[in-house]
Amino acid sequence: MRCLELSGPAPAMASYRYATLDDLDMNSREVVEDVEFSEVVPAVSAMRTSNKIREIVENLTSSKTSNEEGKEVISLSIGDPTTYGNLAVSEQARRAVADAVMSGLANGYAPSTGLKTAREAVAKYYTDPKKDLHVEPEDVILTSGCSHALQMTVTALVDPSRNQNILLPRPGFPLYQTIAEHVGVEIREYPLDPDRDWEVDLDALDDLIDSKTAAVLINNPSNPCGSVYSETHLEKIASICRKRRVPIIADEIYNGFCFTGLDSPWMGSLRVKTPIISVGGISKKYLVPGWRLGWLVIHDVGNALKKVRMGLERLATLIVGPNSIVQTALPKILADVDEPWFQGVIGTLEDNANFVYERLKSIPGIKAVRPQGSMFMLVNVREVNPDDLIFARDCFDRQRIIVLPGTVFGVPGYVRITFSAPRHVLMEACDRLKEYCEETISGETHGTGMDFSECSSLGSPAIVSS
Amino acid sequence: MRCLELSGPAPAMASYRYATLDDLDMNSREVVEDVEFSEVVPAVSAMRTSNKIREIVENLTSSKTSNEEGKEVISLSIGDPTTYGNLAVSEQARRAVADAVMSGLANGYAPSTGLKTAREAVAKYYTDPKKDLHVEPEDVILTSGCSHALQMTVTALVDPSRNQNILLPRPGFPLYQTIAEHVGVEIREYPLDPDRDWEVDLDALDDLIDSKTAAVLINNPSNPCGSVYSETHLEKIASICRKRRVPIIADEIYNGFCFTGLDSPWMGSLRVKTPIISVGGISKKYLVPGWRLGWLVIHDVGNALKKVRMGLERLATLIVGPNSIVQTALPKILADVDEPWFQGVIGTLEDNANFVYERLKSIPGIKAVRPQGSMFMLVNVREVNPDDLIFARDCFDRQRIIVLPGTVFGVPGYVRITFSAPRHVLMEACDRLKEYCEETISGETHGTGMDFSECSSLGSPAIVSS
Repeated sequence: MRCLELSGPAPAMASYRYATLDDLDMNSREVVEDVEFSEVVPAVSAMRTSNKIREIVENLTSSKTSNEEGKEVISLSIGDPTTYGNLAVSEQARRAVADAVMSGLANGYAPSTGLKTAREAVAKYYTDPKKDLHVEPEDVILTSGCSHALQMTVTALVDPSRNQNILLPRPGFPLYQTIAEHVGVEIREYPLDPDRDWEVDLDALDDLIDSKTAAVLINNPSNPCGSVYSETHLEKIASICRKRRVPIIADEIYNGFCFTGLDSPWMGSLRVKTPIISVGGISKKYLVPGWRLGWLVIHDVGNALKKVRMGLERLATLIVGPNSIVQTALPKILADVDEPWFQGVIGTLEDNANFVYERLKSIPGIKAVRPQGSMFMLVNVREVNPDDLIFARDCFDRQRIIVLPGTVFGVPGYVRITFSAPRHVLMEACDRLKEYCEETISGETHGTGMDFSECSSLGSPAIVSS
Repeated sequence: MRCLELSGPAPAMASYRYATLDDLDMNSREVVEDVEFSEVVPAVSAMRTSNKIREIVENLTSSKTSNEEGKEVISLSIGDPTTYGNLAVSEQARRAVADAVMSGLANGYAPSTGLKTAREAVAKYYTDPKKDLHVEPEDVILTSGCSHALQMTVTALVDPSRNQNILLPRPGFPLYQTIAEHVGVEIREYPLDPDRDWEVDLDALDDLIDSKTAAVLINNPSNPCGSVYSETHLEKIASICRKRRVPIIADEIYNGFCFTGLDSPWMGSLRVKTPIISVGGISKKYLVPGWRLGWLVIHDVGNALKKVRMGLERLATLIVGPNSIVQTALPKILADVDEPWFQGVIGTLEDNANFVYERLKSIPGIKAVRPQGSMFMLVNVREVNPDDLIFARDCFDRQRIIVLPGTVFGVPGYVRITFSAPRHVLMEACDRLKEYCEETISGETHGTGMDFSECSSLGSPAIVSS
């Protein structure tokens, strides 16, 4: 009935309300067939859900062909370290999963918050006796990837029915905005300062918090900035949130991705006591984003998060946690894949970061902030083209390089480069980027290819998941 | 600030709003430590999310010990065919997953709607050239289990901001209610008739639909009823929904679980043309509920679901689909695990169903409806105890049998029995049930054990996931 109302006057209700089995006789089905079904209007919460990275990446992947000059596509876009195969999943991790599935004992439902053994392993992973920091298995909820942990945490903490708001970093990972828009809460963006290695502007953060602020989201190490916050900076952030009585959501999926000489603790280990829900997982560290094994860790102060914990446990029952095989393998993965293996990965990423950073310095018109960690850097391209959407489009059109326009991260005039590809690919990419920038500055090229503005959500400041 | 407001008057805002870096000096941290964090109030949408089966099952699992008479716990509760190990996952399925993980090529992000090869495999699985029925890969979205498919579909179709309602079966799987309550839409329950093998009461269904009805959810074969609808009955349901212009959500996770002589098509294959979103997955058929590989299949009529499809694609970007290893293995699983293997599983379930049904007939005071499929049956226990919650509690207390009270499925006076356990376990369970019923009817026992009413959500008519 609601559909008919959309396309014309509704027929008298009575003719439908009292349908009998005779009306439904299959022999009279032709009559029914005459009635066309008008378009069904989807729910608002679905239509306001928009993931800009996914739109761009999945759009470009479908046109992943070489251009007329025979240049193959080089993707420096998605935050997936497995794209080129140069960073390989450890044998121990793969073996742990294969053993779990062949055992035949990892196929049933796990508890909705996760297998006990897996939660214990994560708790142990975060526990640090030297800091007198003890995380209990009950503080850990396993999720279907870190994205799911973020969705659950925002849903539990920030209430649209009470007009609450959430503070998000700008530039920031667009999934935050996607989730907040889906949940239907007000978004306030606090600025990160490119001149201070993308640290949080603390005064601005403090100014944005009000009585309706239900959470501050901190992302460290940062996607897309490639920044790593010092313990002191994190404590300053935590102190503001403590003073203002606002819990922190710490997206620490890149925890440990710190380059030489830098270190950054997870926020639950700080001396400043603030309620924190940290989200993480094995996706990045173990190079397995597709496995969808994430978690959230509740770091409470007193019992401030007692009811929020209940809310999270309830939300966990909706889709009943991550894959049971990976859950079963998790204790082995966390115990057996050793730190030297991970340091090898970080070493490669750091070498790549330095290589790309140095190369970019020789390219006219662009300015990068040297990354301190993660696998991303932001590059200021305003002098080449003030419109980063056009810059990214032309890069693809002329040079078949995929970089993500900063606009999707809330930072127009920049592009994000992922530097996890193999060295020879990065070298080729930098050469092409140089050619493109030199040609553009000298006025030689005009792009006519990929139009990012066709991605429906661009132009409005929001995105979701990579 | 919002937390302080809960426990007392808020301090003057000004003293916080203009905090400077000096205020945040770590040397003055002691001052900050003095302030206690009051309890944070979680969002309403989290707290109204309640999964009764999970609450009961996870509650009982934690007290899974033998009683004073030395009786070991027998669980006939959760819909997990892997519990006892008698129904084993096929070698082909396990091998396909192990091969995928060892290949090292199944670790990256899949597109948020799923790997192309996996979507193609599901489309092929639903396609039936004999019926001129062609499902395209674009009609399939892979999800993190069937629960996730249900959550996405309800979220996309039913809009709380337009005061829409959804029709759910009663008795029905409590996850439906949990999801609808989480989304915040009105629930209307249409009755199933135990005297007609739990068929839908069509007049009642038609009467409940109004201009705000956005979807009718049909579950076939049914959990908890064990019923299998004929094609004719399904067409009658589809005709009502077509006349009333309401799309159908078909939960067909037990598709194919039909006992001898019965058959039941998926609703997209009916001759009556009604927009249908069918949800399913490999959890039950391949005995791998923990793998969390589900899907939804969009069966459109004209372009009625065009925008809903967009909404679903948007929702899929929130947590980026199911585990990549299982997605990679899916085409092999669907192609290589053969029909005789599955018929072996169904044969075992049918033998079990008949065995339990016959045994129950000899027990005084209880009446079962003979199951036609799935792995569940509902048993009327009113003559033993009019309160099914007390019946289930006493069964556990006296006999260490776990059955689920019908109240959690919206059908008080019944209990649900899962009959997937090995024969000797079912035999023992029936013997204990008989002993319990005979003792109770003769007035010999009084339970003092497990109190289901402690499960917070019981008493209100709702549940979620098993």
